[in-house]
Amino acid sequence: MKNFISVHDVTDINALVKKALAYKADPFKDRLLGADKRVGLLFLNPSLRTRLSTQVAAKNLGMEAIVFNVDKEGWALEFEEGAIMSGNTVEHVKDAAPILGQYFDILCIRTFPSLNNREDDYSEMYIHQFIKYAGVPVISLESATLHPLQSLTDIITIQENWKNINRKPKIVLTWAPHIKPLPQCVANSFAQWMNAWGEAEFVITHPEDYELAETFTKGATITHDQNAALENADFVYVKNWSTYTDYGKMYENDPSWMLTEEKMTITNQAKVMHCLPVRRNIELSDEILDGPHSLVSKEAGNRVWAAQAVLSEILMDKK
Amino acid sequence: MKNFISVHDVTDINALVKKALAYKADPFKDRLLGADKRVGLLFLNPSLRTRLSTQVAAKNLGMEAIVFNVDKEGWALEFEEGAIMSGNTVEHVKDAAPILGQYFDILCIRTFPSLNNREDDYSEMYIHQFIKYAGVPVISLESATLHPLQSLTDIITIQENWKNINRKPKIVLTWAPHIKPLPQCVANSFAQWMNAWGEAEFVITHPEDYELAETFTKGATITHDQNAALENADFVYVKNWSTYTDYGKMYENDPSWMLTEEKMTITNQAKVMHCLPVRRNIELSDEILDGPHSLVSKEAGNRVWAAQAVLSEILMDKK
Amino acid sequence: MKNFISVHDVTDINALVKKALAYKADPFKDRLLGADKRVGLLFLNPSLRTRLSTQVAAKNLGMEAIVFNVDKEGWALEFEEGAIMSGNTVEHVKDAAPILGQYFDILCIRTFPSLNNREDDYSEMYIHQFIKYAGVPVISLESATLHPLQSLTDIITIQENWKNINRKPKIVLTWAPHIKPLPQCVANSFAQWMNAWGEAEFVITHPEDYELAETFTKGATITHDQNAALENADFVYVKNWSTYTDYGKMYENDPSWMLTEEKMTITNQAKVMHCLPVRRNIELSDEILDGPHSLVSKEAGNRVWAAQAVLSEILMDKK
Repeated sequence: MKNFISVHDVTDINALVKKALAYKADPFKDRLLGADKRVGLLFLNPSLRTRLSTQVAAKNLGMEAIVFNVDKEGWALEFEEGAIMSGNTVEHVKDAAPILGQYFDILCIRTFPSLNNREDDYSEMYIHQFIKYAGVPVISLESATLHPLQSLTDIITIQENWKNINRKPKIVLTWAPHIKPLPQCVANSFAQWMNAWGEAEFVITHPEDYELAETFTKGATITHDQNAALENADFVYVKNWSTYTDYGKMYENDPSWMLTEEKMTITNQAKVMHCLPVRRNIELSDEILDGPHSLVSKEAGNRVWAAQAVLSEILMDKK
Repeated sequence: MKNFISVHDVTDINALVKKALAYKADPFKDRLLGADKRVGLLFLNPSLRTRLSTQVAAKNLGMEAIVFNVDKEGWALEFEEGAIMSGNTVEHVKDAAPILGQYFDILCIRTFPSLNNREDDYSEMYIHQFIKYAGVPVISLESATLHPLQSLTDIITIQENWKNINRKPKIVLTWAPHIKPLPQCVANSFAQWMNAWGEAEFVITHPEDYELAETFTKGATITHDQNAALENADFVYVKNWSTYTDYGKMYENDPSWMLTEEKMTITNQAKVMHCLPVRRNIELSDEILDGPHSLVSKEAGNRVWAAQAVLSEILMDKK
Repeated sequence: MKNFISVHDVTDINALVKKALAYKADPFKDRLLGADKRVGLLFLNPSLRTRLSTQVAAKNLGMEAIVFNVDKEGWALEFEEGAIMSGNTVEHVKDAAPILGQYFDILCIRTFPSLNNREDDYSEMYIHQFIKYAGVPVISLESATLHPLQSLTDIITIQENWKNINRKPKIVLTWAPHIKPLPQCVANSFAQWMNAWGEAEFVITHPEDYELAETFTKGATITHDQNAALENADFVYVKNWSTYTDYGKMYENDPSWMLTEEKMTITNQAKVMHCLPVRRNIELSDEILDGPHSLVSKEAGNRVWAAQAVLSEILMDKK
């Protein structure tokens, strides 16, 4: 693996999942793989789970992990080619990235979308500029449109919790209310991985006007009828996102889309997933999050093993 | 030791002090005790000594220490059960804590009181919620009402500096002026540990209206006459705190309560202690802080050994 | 080496450069030198390259490096002797420094000038107070008037790129436009090191009114004619600085001082240097920065080896 910014960087999803679960069983089995290697974790936006789980994963492999909060500890970066830098940006990615590539063996980067300009966000300029100029492998810790470590984690968690070899699970990605417009990253990425994985009956449900980009959803069944989607579901993945078509808006925010115990009765005793952080009693009710069907805590715990598997693949590729 | 949030978590104060002093004599003697263990240091409020000394202590034991400034690097946490999270809090402790408990073997947490609502602050909800949901041992790096690592440090420092086996030292906790209302944590905690320790004649002195909570002070002699308190004192512990009764206020702020060299003549050449940071020439005069009787620098240095002893106890209990 | 705050702490520049280049060839050759040692990196001002390169250098020597952003994670420090601390400063350097000296074997500190009061800035009170009170070696990560790790890096980079043993290189430090008044540190320090090194024909060029302090420039040729300066130059070091005489101002900001490819034709195919961050197309044109004569990325990469050589010298001196 050269970089890890989407499912397209993965040749065999199931093999990567298997690798992650092997690390879960024995976290320190490759403790020398990353000896004398360093990974830099750059955050252009805040992070809790992603930051800590990636630090832990790196240490399990014997790597040094150094965190740099670019927004808080550093200064604003410029990403536009040819910019006359007379404004607020202090350093160009063309200068920063190759230096970071000299200091680190692997760079991990988190950026967020603006939600103002769809074309810009969906060009993924920030992370592509880092890849172009860093000269070392780049791992996305969430970018403007995707969150691949989360999606890998989600498939790990689904595999751990689906033991029926006779049929594929029905997995539903459902939109949920929120209090402000959020990126489409987690939903896009989950759809992309589900479709690439192919080992599920995959359904997406959301209110009208919340269509996701077809490039990620193609292959999924899409419906505006949440109840129909939930019928006989084995896994329900809950997530809010803002509008894609009329970009970055919060159109309708119908509270009836919140997942509740009552709705869960339609499902096949489905397990409930969410990437966290979750707005309790807005996106999901307490009763579900605190109940026996919630996988959210295990899912977040699995972030470590997803990160460790990806770091390991990149380290092995470099050897 | 399961957790460390107050003196009640300690079965034998003197044994813990002895352990700390053994680490001071030989910092790396248990360098393998924490191998493959990780401690997460979560700061909901800023810290210098506490953060750095705990990092150093963890490393001395061979542990990885990972710092997370929740307020600056993360987002606001929700602590209320059943909250409908439509406001500023982004993640519930019920979701964050169990995840952190999966990433770390021990969690250390600093929170501060609001100083607005006494009942809330004295319920210590924040740290109790972390303990309830984390599933791993929790160490207080100062909470709403207590600062046990500081108090353990203080007793270590007193023991180091009291060699008279014929009588107990007289130890005076004296209120000092400040420029703004401060928590009662350090004073509460020092009183709680002094009373539990029992190896001193313990006196508290403060202006009227600055009574501390009786639950911590019971057993101490309390007086509003600073001079009477200081008479023949062997140790003077200087600290400002805001009002407890009419909660969180700065009533009177009489500069005559500042400890000076002149006042020290009443004492038995007392050693002077302060937890730092100190407002020089407001709480304490330069002449005392820079003079031969000040223990403040040694005291702060001892923070490392207190933290190391507590981490060690918890690691040994887990084995 | 006891401290590293200016060229005066170095007895043999060429030996230090040689040491740095030996680390570049074999980063881990002294991996046990710093075992059980800790370096604290204190930032009173933000940093990217300096912070990360020093962390990497310390780890290469087997040292623990702990970063503390005093401005963001801590609180404002007081540096004035005798201050009555009733204002915004929370802790005096007299209290903070000796404690840090107990926690760490070496302290690295970054401070910036105010650019308001020349006498204060040029007294270098902040770093001198740290040295006075810390009780352990102090390394400047840039101070009010100097940036010695940058200058050492610059000489390393020049030596790597100058193979002509028959003559000394001509090295030109040229002022460049900027959008706001910057410290004189990098320029002062480069001049100081160039003059102390003595192995170059050293020329400084800047617009009228931008004279640097003579204490650093004495020995250099100084001219207001940029073209004359650039003639036959082998290295051009580009840097903006604010006025020294009428202190901290941005007098004229003539864009014609920006270095361009056209101007480079006057030189002897000179290599171009800059300490970064650089305002592209304000200080330097894209065509130069992205062209074959730019050393800026290699130069920034060399920051690691400069820091490693200095840390190594201090560690060896302590033994």
